[in-house]
Amino acid sequence: MHYGGDWNPEQWPEKTWGEDVRLMTEAGITLVRTGTHGWARTEPAPGAWDFGWLDRALDLLADAGVDVVLSTMTGGPPPWLLRRHPEAAPDGTACPSGPVRHTYATRLVEQLARRYGDHPAVALWHIGDVYGSGHGCARPCGCEACEEAFREWLRARYGSLDALNSAWTTAVRSQTYGAWEEVRLPGHAGSAGECAPDPARLLDRRRFTHDALLGCFLAEREVLRALTPEVPVTTGFLPLDGSVDQFGWARHQDVVALGPAAGSGEAAGTGGPLAAAAAFDAARGAGGGQPWMLLDHGPAEGPWPPGALRLRAWQAVAQGADAVLPAPWRQPRGGAGRFRAALVPHAGTASRMFTEARALGHELAAAPAELEGSRVSAVRAALVLDWPSRWALEQSPAAGLDTPGLLLRYHAPLLRSHVTCDVVPPGRDLTGPGYRLVVVPHLHLLSVLDARRLAGYVRGGGHLLVGCCSGIVDESARLHGNGWAAPLRELLGVTVEEPWPLAEGVTVPVEGGPAGSGHGSAWAEVLTLDGAEAVARFTGGPAAGGPAVTRHSYGDGVAWYVATRLDAGALERLLGAACARAGAEPVLPGLPREVQAAERRAADGTRFVLLLNHGARQARCRLPQPMRDVLTPGRDADAPVYQVTLPPGGVAVLSAAPPGT
Amino acid sequence: MHYGGDWNPEQWPEKTWGEDVRLMTEAGITLVRTGTHGWARTEPAPGAWDFGWLDRALDLLADAGVDVVLSTMTGGPPPWLLRRHPEAAPDGTACPSGPVRHTYATRLVEQLARRYGDHPAVALWHIGDVYGSGHGCARPCGCEACEEAFREWLRARYGSLDALNSAWTTAVRSQTYGAWEEVRLPGHAGSAGECAPDPARLLDRRRFTHDALLGCFLAEREVLRALTPEVPVTTGFLPLDGSVDQFGWARHQDVVALGPAAGSGEAAGTGGPLAAAAAFDAARGAGGGQPWMLLDHGPAEGPWPPGALRLRAWQAVAQGADAVLPAPWRQPRGGAGRFRAALVPHAGTASRMFTEARALGHELAAAPAELEGSRVSAVRAALVLDWPSRWALEQSPAAGLDTPGLLLRYHAPLLRSHVTCDVVPPGRDLTGPGYRLVVVPHLHLLSVLDARRLAGYVRGGGHLLVGCCSGIVDESARLHGNGWAAPLRELLGVTVEEPWPLAEGVTVPVEGGPAGSGHGSAWAEVLTLDGAEAVARFTGGPAAGGPAVTRHSYGDGVAWYVATRLDAGALERLLGAACARAGAEPVLPGLPREVQAAERRAADGTRFVLLLNHGARQARCRLPQPMRDVLTPGRDADAPVYQVTLPPGGVAVLSAAPPGT
Amino acid sequence: MHYGGDWNPEQWPEKTWGEDVRLMTEAGITLVRTGTHGWARTEPAPGAWDFGWLDRALDLLADAGVDVVLSTMTGGPPPWLLRRHPEAAPDGTACPSGPVRHTYATRLVEQLARRYGDHPAVALWHIGDVYGSGHGCARPCGCEACEEAFREWLRARYGSLDALNSAWTTAVRSQTYGAWEEVRLPGHAGSAGECAPDPARLLDRRRFTHDALLGCFLAEREVLRALTPEVPVTTGFLPLDGSVDQFGWARHQDVVALGPAAGSGEAAGTGGPLAAAAAFDAARGAGGGQPWMLLDHGPAEGPWPPGALRLRAWQAVAQGADAVLPAPWRQPRGGAGRFRAALVPHAGTASRMFTEARALGHELAAAPAELEGSRVSAVRAALVLDWPSRWALEQSPAAGLDTPGLLLRYHAPLLRSHVTCDVVPPGRDLTGPGYRLVVVPHLHLLSVLDARRLAGYVRGGGHLLVGCCSGIVDESARLHGNGWAAPLRELLGVTVEEPWPLAEGVTVPVEGGPAGSGHGSAWAEVLTLDGAEAVARFTGGPAAGGPAVTRHSYGDGVAWYVATRLDAGALERLLGAACARAGAEPVLPGLPREVQAAERRAADGTRFVLLLNHGARQARCRLPQPMRDVLTPGRDADAPVYQVTLPPGGVAVLSAAPPGT
Repeated sequence: MHYGGDWNPEQWPEKTWGEDVRLMTEAGITLVRTGTHGWARTEPAPGAWDFGWLDRALDLLADAGVDVVLSTMTGGPPPWLLRRHPEAAPDGTACPSGPVRHTYATRLVEQLARRYGDHPAVALWHIGDVYGSGHGCARPCGCEACEEAFREWLRARYGSLDALNSAWTTAVRSQTYGAWEEVRLPGHAGSAGECAPDPARLLDRRRFTHDALLGCFLAEREVLRALTPEVPVTTGFLPLDGSVDQFGWARHQDVVALGPAAGSGEAAGTGGPLAAAAAFDAARGAGGGQPWMLLDHGPAEGPWPPGALRLRAWQAVAQGADAVLPAPWRQPRGGAGRFRAALVPHAGTASRMFTEARALGHELAAAPAELEGSRVSAVRAALVLDWPSRWALEQSPAAGLDTPGLLLRYHAPLLRSHVTCDVVPPGRDLTGPGYRLVVVPHLHLLSVLDARRLAGYVRGGGHLLVGCCSGIVDESARLHGNGWAAPLRELLGVTVEEPWPLAEGVTVPVEGGPAGSGHGSAWAEVLTLDGAEAVARFTGGPAAGGPAVTRHSYGDGVAWYVATRLDAGALERLLGAACARAGAEPVLPGLPREVQAAERRAADGTRFVLLLNHGARQARCRLPQPMRDVLTPGRDADAPVYQVTLPPGGVAVLSAAPPGT
Repeated sequence: MHYGGDWNPEQWPEKTWGEDVRLMTEAGITLVRTGTHGWARTEPAPGAWDFGWLDRALDLLADAGVDVVLSTMTGGPPPWLLRRHPEAAPDGTACPSGPVRHTYATRLVEQLARRYGDHPAVALWHIGDVYGSGHGCARPCGCEACEEAFREWLRARYGSLDALNSAWTTAVRSQTYGAWEEVRLPGHAGSAGECAPDPARLLDRRRFTHDALLGCFLAEREVLRALTPEVPVTTGFLPLDGSVDQFGWARHQDVVALGPAAGSGEAAGTGGPLAAAAAFDAARGAGGGQPWMLLDHGPAEGPWPPGALRLRAWQAVAQGADAVLPAPWRQPRGGAGRFRAALVPHAGTASRMFTEARALGHELAAAPAELEGSRVSAVRAALVLDWPSRWALEQSPAAGLDTPGLLLRYHAPLLRSHVTCDVVPPGRDLTGPGYRLVVVPHLHLLSVLDARRLAGYVRGGGHLLVGCCSGIVDESARLHGNGWAAPLRELLGVTVEEPWPLAEGVTVPVEGGPAGSGHGSAWAEVLTLDGAEAVARFTGGPAAGGPAVTRHSYGDGVAWYVATRLDAGALERLLGAACARAGAEPVLPGLPREVQAAERRAADGTRFVLLLNHGARQARCRLPQPMRDVLTPGRDADAPVYQVTLPPGGVAVLSAAPPGT
Repeated sequence: MHYGGDWNPEQWPEKTWGEDVRLMTEAGITLVRTGTHGWARTEPAPGAWDFGWLDRALDLLADAGVDVVLSTMTGGPPPWLLRRHPEAAPDGTACPSGPVRHTYATRLVEQLARRYGDHPAVALWHIGDVYGSGHGCARPCGCEACEEAFREWLRARYGSLDALNSAWTTAVRSQTYGAWEEVRLPGHAGSAGECAPDPARLLDRRRFTHDALLGCFLAEREVLRALTPEVPVTTGFLPLDGSVDQFGWARHQDVVALGPAAGSGEAAGTGGPLAAAAAFDAARGAGGGQPWMLLDHGPAEGPWPPGALRLRAWQAVAQGADAVLPAPWRQPRGGAGRFRAALVPHAGTASRMFTEARALGHELAAAPAELEGSRVSAVRAALVLDWPSRWALEQSPAAGLDTPGLLLRYHAPLLRSHVTCDVVPPGRDLTGPGYRLVVVPHLHLLSVLDARRLAGYVRGGGHLLVGCCSGIVDESARLHGNGWAAPLRELLGVTVEEPWPLAEGVTVPVEGGPAGSGHGSAWAEVLTLDGAEAVARFTGGPAAGGPAVTRHSYGDGVAWYVATRLDAGALERLLGAACARAGAEPVLPGLPREVQAAERRAADGTRFVLLLNHGARQARCRLPQPMRDVLTPGRDADAPVYQVTLPPGGVAVLSAAPPGT
């Protein structure tokens, strides 16, 4: 397991670097990210390069055996660039469309690649910095270059104005375009039809923004691929951040990374272990199950609570991470982040924080070598998440269904049931990985092709649970023809007669079936059964008397449908029943609700079971078969363990030999 | 009764039009609005006209006998216009001041008038689209043309800078103007005195904005009057929207229309039957009692609840509408409105919605022919509403008293008491129509002339109830001289000593008289009696011990005054007592509270009584004299009816022969 | 005692002036502020002067023996100035950086000084109007002149770019400057690093803004000093307003003035007597104990409650004011302030308001002459307040600790204990004035020098109570080196291990010591004792079990530390104990909690004791020695008084002869 933090030597006098590296060694640090904020130091004036500081910093690390994720530094353009090209940041964040950033950024990356591509410390390139977060390279700013890029993007997507007019249904509000030049980025002065912009146009703005950011990334990646083909590349994202399609982006990364701080920006809801779990499964899903990397993932302000650093680090490992860089290395004296937790806090190395950080380093170093590179196994379920669908949902009366709640609401019950699930995009193969249950929460935008993919999975024996408001619009945010949610009608065995947005605070009661007594909110649908059976019914609200939960036998499988957003308790009961019927079994049976369980399987077949107690009380976990404790220091490595007792925040790593050994 | 919806053929392939018109016939549709979003289709490039589509659409309608409210299409300028003249929409909404819109809009209107003025289907012109709502032609944008137009408007209003300086009391904040060029639209960069703009200046911005929008309307009307003098014109407004003076505007329309959707923009509070009732009475009041037209009046998102379409349609008829176009004809597949209810919903024609729409069409078609053209009668009360007063109120510490609550609070008790009232502007004749009670809620701005009009009405035997904070400022938002509310002092028999704004959430207790125990909020006044008697007193707050409700015999009439904003219950009790004393009788005596009652009287003297049950329970209505049921299918047309039982949402239309037949 | 209001003759026809001045005489008015909004009248066009009106107005006052605080009129630039120089107010408020304001303003001031410098009525100059409030000269607007002025200011402060880069720790976010031209005002388009601006940069923006406003003031003062050296100058501030460092500014004023209206802008929380008391002590503290002046201090809207004008006026006197101009003289008919209370209200002179205003004038006139010029005495405590520290706090996770709550929370308990305290800046001498207890609430920014000053005070026998989050950052908002709050470590005898920001609504329980059972919020610290003893401990939250309140004997004194923001009750108990231990005695012992007590001592040694009842019930105050009642009309001037009974809102002024007479 790789372990470390963000080391920013440019923030400190050089004389302190040696002490830093010594402390890293003491704390078991094996990997640091460096250079994130180094552009101004490396290129203090246009084309004037100063690599000496970085040479010395990297050499120090190499000597100490600490590997480096080297940043391309392009997340933080230096002041001279913005002074020279004010148009590069017309509204205070850097514009991704103009030629300026590409020119200067790629020139810098080329220098870095040539100089450090085969430096012994450099293990990985980190490109840019938190795309889409408002840091550094942020969003199209509406300058002329952005407008032009938007039109180019639309030309490439639609080919013709006729296709664009059709996709955007411009006739609906007298916005039919007669020339490409008439098309403007929505949200900017002078844009036509701003009082009620077309949802398709807003959706395409989201897509274009995404692709503009991706373009910045790809321009750098191209340079790196050409010059240092052997060094893998990554970049970190805010957990489940709405502006970047992590699934689409992951195709262009060698390693998926998740960062930075929970609690900042859109990631505000991601502080707890349930939210982290959803984000971690999505990070693993983005990389197709490959080991991923946790970056800079601490509280936005103030310390980690006692034990929290260790628990979160092991949670990442349990969910498939092979590298954990959970915090800055050292708290800076200035800057907006000076109150953020770091491994070496302002209080110094005698502090609780550094003590915990060091203990974690030693613990990770002592963990079995086979754990690294092992894959999360015993995955029995999948959750389908889709960024374009989230973007379309924003433009609909069902906006209240959107993430982070969207994913978390369906993910947490599975986690509490100890059923491991992948979070995957709708285009992913669902039949291969042995999923017993696939959950599709509010997939508002669903292409006919992807709907067929879901049907194929169920026909082949899969179980599927679909949340309301799915399959409503097509890729252009248009209602699918032939009535509501037509692409899912045959599969679900229901027809949506009337979709009802529910005002904030309004709930509708639901009764019956495994969900028991519950209520829905945000959205409710009047259904007619078309082959499915009603498992629960609305007992109030606009669909009173009608089905609220349905089940349909389809091919060799089963398709559930939930016609509202169920409350957490009812949803957990319903998902429990769906798992049971589908044969989606927990990692271990009979575990306490607050314990998270995961299994990783090494290349040699060794099974590791990781147990984490997120609760406030001691938790006793009985093992169905004796295993070995491979974590506790001073343990008898060969003694069979039949039961594990975890204190609050406790972690256990157990192993079982491969079958047949 | 005319019945229909918005038909937008430009949004659909032409091959579906025939089916649309066939369904209209099936559903009893007699009138549709067409062309609202047709500009881009009709003039795809500047001066390049394409009328073929509209020729064919109108011919189809004419063949089917469906009449058309033809839109002048100018609510939605096409993209080419804004590209050609970016200054026409500097902040994303179209500027009403520049020459551009007038030039292009009137050119289009001229083309439409020449081509369709005598088309057999065309019954009415609809000019623009929802002035003041933020759609289409929206508000002065502060461009140079707006600034210039504002100055021109001021010159015309005040004649001289001295008069302006006096009206705006510019000396109060060192803002005395020495040249017209120094005057700026408030709220824009560089405007002087922006930290505390003069209320008179803000009031005049409101007036100017209104007149600028009205100017757009009048420019088109002028073209239409010249070319098609025989075709009446209309335009629809948001119910009680704050930015457009519906009373002032109505003088320029041949038919008053109310639309569009409740729930959008400022109309958010207008969803329920009480709010609709207030808006409907104001629509009738705007037209001086003439039949009016309901346009595009549905929920902003999601379906009409079961039965609601019918109930709302009949409510409009009960309150004087002769044409009901309550929704779009067909739900579009794209655009921001794709979730709005339509007569033909996305679910198709087998749906509940279309079934209800068709049934309503048949019911309206079967209603007695004499109902059309009949006038609302048995009007015993009037409520005085004034847009300029609302605008002045906004700029005062009494802003909390403003609409929609302002009107609704005083209107709902009369509705529940089944006393029919007109909603009229302060300049309207109050002595002619036989009003027994006139209610004046918080008429903050009141001219001396209009105060005299009120006094004359009371002297002649009328009863008047005035709400607090009335008569405080003059036409320039200046305090009237000679103390608070001086123009009303003699009439009300009270002197306002101290007006107290109450902070949000603060209430003051009131006791005594017909209002019983209640409380006031938002505003409370310390009064001294000057001829009036105290009917209720404050028992707490800044005016504790002083009069809260007074009554004054003046001439042959009676003037009540309420020195605070009473809570709904106390106000209903007080208005009930005021009605009783004034002899303002209900349409029918003894009706349940949740039933709305109205009377319309035909030219031949036939009386129609309409009863609508807005409650959730069955309601039994006893009739004081036997009448005939002219609505229920299969009824015995001549059988006398002594009593009507209405289910929830139920509607009855009864008739009584003219007296003497 | 001087008494009066704001008289704005330019707002009224000249024929009413005589009546105004007659009423002033009747009401005992001795001092009015005049000219505040007079610029447009005095200079109706550039360089065209009209002084006639002001000549006549001042002559009228002189004839009646009413003195004048003459405004320099520069708070309200006339429309022609902004039309001529749109760049002078690019965002609607006047830019303080450009040459325009200085040019025109100083030219006007020169005219006024030459003409009225020796007018018999003119007693004082009032420069500008409410700097920093958004009125008139407001804030740097980000124009080129502001950007340039900011850079000049930085050059003067830091000398070199290296010093700037170090102070702002620009390396932390790749913002190292290579040229002065790269430095921009934060918060403006094109500024680098806007997504997380450096706190030091934001702090310097605050300082620069402050100094830019001060520059406007000083430019006018220079003119006045040169031409009318014998006429003192003042300017009024919003009570405790965050944008102006009243302590720093006071050095440049001859008289400290406090105004205008509580309830407007940032002063919203300052309406009650506790808030006023804190602001009044700070006004006295700003002037180093010299008599100060209350200006234009009434409710923002609506009347003064009965008795409130008198009580507030005497409160100002009790806390050291010698001049009370609490309201506008006459309510204007127009303008945004037309609902603000005035001495002559819109209801006229027969009103309660004018009756109270007149009675107050007579009462002040009858007060002993020795009261004027006397100094507040028996001051036993000091509260340390610092504007730069407040500005730094804003940029930290402890922003929730900021004012007005910051000061008020610690001030009110002392007031309720009748312990008189000065509010002083951290640089003020603490050992001279005989303070027994110094309270330092949340002094986030603390220089090493000022920390030493605190230590010296305690070493010399003083008692000190420091609130959490103090001493965290240096003058550049950087964490002090060597761990948290290092400059206070030795003095307090504690080490801050971990500072924890607490989310809004989160509280942590505290138990023990004189504070009893309480709770903290906003901030909590994990401490280790380093010589201090724990007086109370956290019983929950992130510092559970650790010290919450500590006490440390240091030198001859005692230093308390409170590691969280205590709730009001616990803090009051703790401060009571700290006062008792320190020997910080009340003005009079045994007074009811709701009574405010103060002592002023005249030059001849006469002691005046002022007692004010802020409670809703009668309060009985026993006097420890017999005194004389010098306020009640008709009193026996020589009768000894042993006890005073104050009705709600009641005021007593008592005197004791100088010792030995």
